[in-house]
Amino acid sequence: MDDVVLVYKEKPELNAPIMVEGLPGVGNVGKLAAEHLVDQLKAVKFVEIFSKYFPPQVLVSDSGVIKLVSNDMYYVKRPDAENDLVILVGDYQGLTPDGQYELSDRIMRMAQDLGVKMTFTLGGYGLGKLIEKPRVLGAVTEAGLVEEMKKHGVTFSKGEPGSGIVGASGLLLGLGKIMGMRCVCLMGETSGYFVDPKAAQAVLEVLSKILKVKLDYKDLEDKAQQIDMLTSKLKELEPQSEPRKDDLGYIG
Amino acid sequence: MDDVVLVYKEKPELNAPIMVEGLPGVGNVGKLAAEHLVDQLKAVKFVEIFSKYFPPQVLVSDSGVIKLVSNDMYYVKRPDAENDLVILVGDYQGLTPDGQYELSDRIMRMAQDLGVKMTFTLGGYGLGKLIEKPRVLGAVTEAGLVEEMKKHGVTFSKGEPGSGIVGASGLLLGLGKIMGMRCVCLMGETSGYFVDPKAAQAVLEVLSKILKVKLDYKDLEDKAQQIDMLTSKLKELEPQSEPRKDDLGYIG
Amino acid sequence: MDDVVLVYKEKPELNAPIMVEGLPGVGNVGKLAAEHLVDQLKAVKFVEIFSKYFPPQVLVSDSGVIKLVSNDMYYVKRPDAENDLVILVGDYQGLTPDGQYELSDRIMRMAQDLGVKMTFTLGGYGLGKLIEKPRVLGAVTEAGLVEEMKKHGVTFSKGEPGSGIVGASGLLLGLGKIMGMRCVCLMGETSGYFVDPKAAQAVLEVLSKILKVKLDYKDLEDKAQQIDMLTSKLKELEPQSEPRKDDLGYIG
Amino acid sequence: MDDVVLVYKEKPELNAPIMVEGLPGVGNVGKLAAEHLVDQLKAVKFVEIFSKYFPPQVLVSDSGVIKLVSNDMYYVKRPDAENDLVILVGDYQGLTPDGQYELSDRIMRMAQDLGVKMTFTLGGYGLGKLIEKPRVLGAVTEAGLVEEMKKHGVTFSKGEPGSGIVGASGLLLGLGKIMGMRCVCLMGETSGYFVDPKAAQAVLEVLSKILKVKLDYKDLEDKAQQIDMLTSKLKELEPQSEPRKDDLGYIG
Repeated sequence: MDDVVLVYKEKPELNAPIMVEGLPGVGNVGKLAAEHLVDQLKAVKFVEIFSKYFPPQVLVSDSGVIKLVSNDMYYVKRPDAENDLVILVGDYQGLTPDGQYELSDRIMRMAQDLGVKMTFTLGGYGLGKLIEKPRVLGAVTEAGLVEEMKKHGVTFSKGEPGSGIVGASGLLLGLGKIMGMRCVCLMGETSGYFVDPKAAQAVLEVLSKILKVKLDYKDLEDKAQQIDMLTSKLKELEPQSEPRKDDLGYIG
Repeated sequence: MDDVVLVYKEKPELNAPIMVEGLPGVGNVGKLAAEHLVDQLKAVKFVEIFSKYFPPQVLVSDSGVIKLVSNDMYYVKRPDAENDLVILVGDYQGLTPDGQYELSDRIMRMAQDLGVKMTFTLGGYGLGKLIEKPRVLGAVTEAGLVEEMKKHGVTFSKGEPGSGIVGASGLLLGLGKIMGMRCVCLMGETSGYFVDPKAAQAVLEVLSKILKVKLDYKDLEDKAQQIDMLTSKLKELEPQSEPRKDDLGYIG
Repeated sequence: MDDVVLVYKEKPELNAPIMVEGLPGVGNVGKLAAEHLVDQLKAVKFVEIFSKYFPPQVLVSDSGVIKLVSNDMYYVKRPDAENDLVILVGDYQGLTPDGQYELSDRIMRMAQDLGVKMTFTLGGYGLGKLIEKPRVLGAVTEAGLVEEMKKHGVTFSKGEPGSGIVGASGLLLGLGKIMGMRCVCLMGETSGYFVDPKAAQAVLEVLSKILKVKLDYKDLEDKAQQIDMLTSKLKELEPQSEPRKDDLGYIG
Repeated sequence: MDDVVLVYKEKPELNAPIMVEGLPGVGNVGKLAAEHLVDQLKAVKFVEIFSKYFPPQVLVSDSGVIKLVSNDMYYVKRPDAENDLVILVGDYQGLTPDGQYELSDRIMRMAQDLGVKMTFTLGGYGLGKLIEKPRVLGAVTEAGLVEEMKKHGVTFSKGEPGSGIVGASGLLLGLGKIMGMRCVCLMGETSGYFVDPKAAQAVLEVLSKILKVKLDYKDLEDKAQQIDMLTSKLKELEPQSEPRKDDLGYIG
């Protein structure tokens, strides 16, 4: 069996596409954000990526039909904009370090074949404490991108993330840089304790300005409210103490 | 050494065979059921599958002769039925995720070469509590199979199994779906605490109707009685408490 | 780098050689026995086996010179006997299951090239309790070998080892059987708590009769005495209790 | 993706180069020492080594620009000396045993291509207790090097390191020996509890004599002073007890 198996539904011709990635990770921030983007922009799935680097697992739909776990690429054609979009979402990241490398390398080569010159990876930055208004931290493949991103409200903060970026959100940048691709990682601050739709919204508010798309956040706000109710209950239960600032690092 | 080594005893010509898989897993339900099928139908072993994805282990018979751990395929010729049968049983599933993929992929390609168009995988669905009358839950590769299976008493229940199906029973479906093969996973409800012949019998009662075979359950009933004696003793020892419904998920 | 790297010092011509294997394992029984055989028979090292399946480690001699960890093959020419000998000893077994398979497969193919038709693997059978007079248990690749081994004092006992034989001592038999080679595993009973020279001696007393070699056991007896002193001290410290018969299984 | 990816900035022509390796390990002694050497000798980076055997991680600079984790080779041209230098430093060692082998093998073959005939690997020797004046222990690939190294103050001590040398510092010697390269491992004694600049300085004081380079130790001394302040505080907090001499072994 090939290490990575691609099942194409369609081979789209895209105009100077920008890629956006959001896979499971800290607070599921990236996955929530990218899936929201898929929903809102009515993106079209064109390829499924299966791999022995994913868990040996199928998911079962409510009707009883299975699907093998995968990463999937969607496209959005935008005839009135400068760039079409490619969005990468999925059930899992690679399970092992070498699996992460193999998958990220494959994805970046697929992106190159699609003509992608710019990639945004979305993730969460785990703070280990509850947070009211999440900032969106950035990391980039070339110095010139820092000022560009700052204009859109991205925070660049010395020493954050201290331990670097682990996982697909980082690796796509690392491999992209070697290939000469311009890449930005956007990390929404999150406690890391829960799935965090609020951090996902913060990330999307920045990204939507960059990509010049209009998004409705109703779904994310609803989810956030549910999580807020949970966390307020937890706060009540918590003993009075200094909020911890654990170095949870970042798993993107 | 090849990753997977096939040692053929015979290359049978089979008539539109249906494959049935039962490997070790939760409650050993699938393995018990498939081995019972092999015994009852006097199935003939025709190929041994050895692999570096299995444990580096030999089993020792009562007489002192060893065998390397393996998966094995049997066939049943049924001149009076529409379909011959292929039955896959074995000592272990693959140890690692990528080993699971490699083995399941190989098995599905062997099945294709044999002309298999339909596969049933058998497993247990762990509930984390003792259960009187196990249902048989189903998952399928295409929507059309749901109604067909319901007629034979298979239960399709929204949200069950919640976390999907992990291991060979799921993966064979996932890879089969990509290959365009019709596949059904039959999961007998089980506590998951013990080897569970009762759940195996429940699965076989459904499967025998589908395959139109007659089975005697004496052996399984005897085994079940032994386990029942054990569990009643445990129940006596147990403190009075709500039965737990742990989300043990499903390892097939 | 090749998965397995062979560095030959010599390519010996051997007369119908019998192979003996003893690698680290339970009680280090196999390793102790095989190394004692190398010493007593003045065996000559002819090939070093290096591999990425071993730990990334060098050993440092008393003089400060390193050697990369390895398995090594020695030969013994016996012009007056029917069979020359090949002895396999080493610092480690493969670290991973697939590494175990790759190494054992390579070793068996090397053995075939040397003309080996018969192999003895040596190991310990862990009982989880101290033992006065260790028996030597056997497992074989073909039924005909059972009676032959019984004549030399090997015990074949139904249900022992219950969980089969894990590791190189088992795997060499398993792969040897597939290749059509006659193989015997000799397991000296041991507590498994200590390095066990007494079990190694028991194994060698049987093996020396089979191979028709004379061995002096002074070194092993000295080592055994040191261990005995240790264990008597431990016995004094132990609370009075039934000796446990844990199912430690067997790691050969 | 290739297992190891080399990105060359330059292919230097070097005069009989000596290689020095210092990667993360016990007390980070080797890494500290090799990086100090790079700084002091104004070494020039000429190749970056990326690999799927490293963690899937990027590091983020203070300005927000990422770099994929790597090992890097630098050169130092010394027109007035007998030997140019190659220095290997990096963010990580290989994560898995086979990754360690693959990376070390690749590095040694790169060294051969550069004309390297002599290699020094630098590491820490963990004692599990605080130490006033660290000795520098040695291990070599051939007996002739022992006397040569003793002249420069390297200690060769029977039974140290007892468990051999694990990791890149050992493996480069092990593979180098097979290739016929002369190699020396220099291990600075360290508690192993902290990053240890004092041990790094001890190693460099020996190495600088061998390589005939002059080094300023101001930076390392400053770092050592900071660590000393930390450890004195810890000593105050510690209960009065015998210093432990744990067998921490050596991870180089």
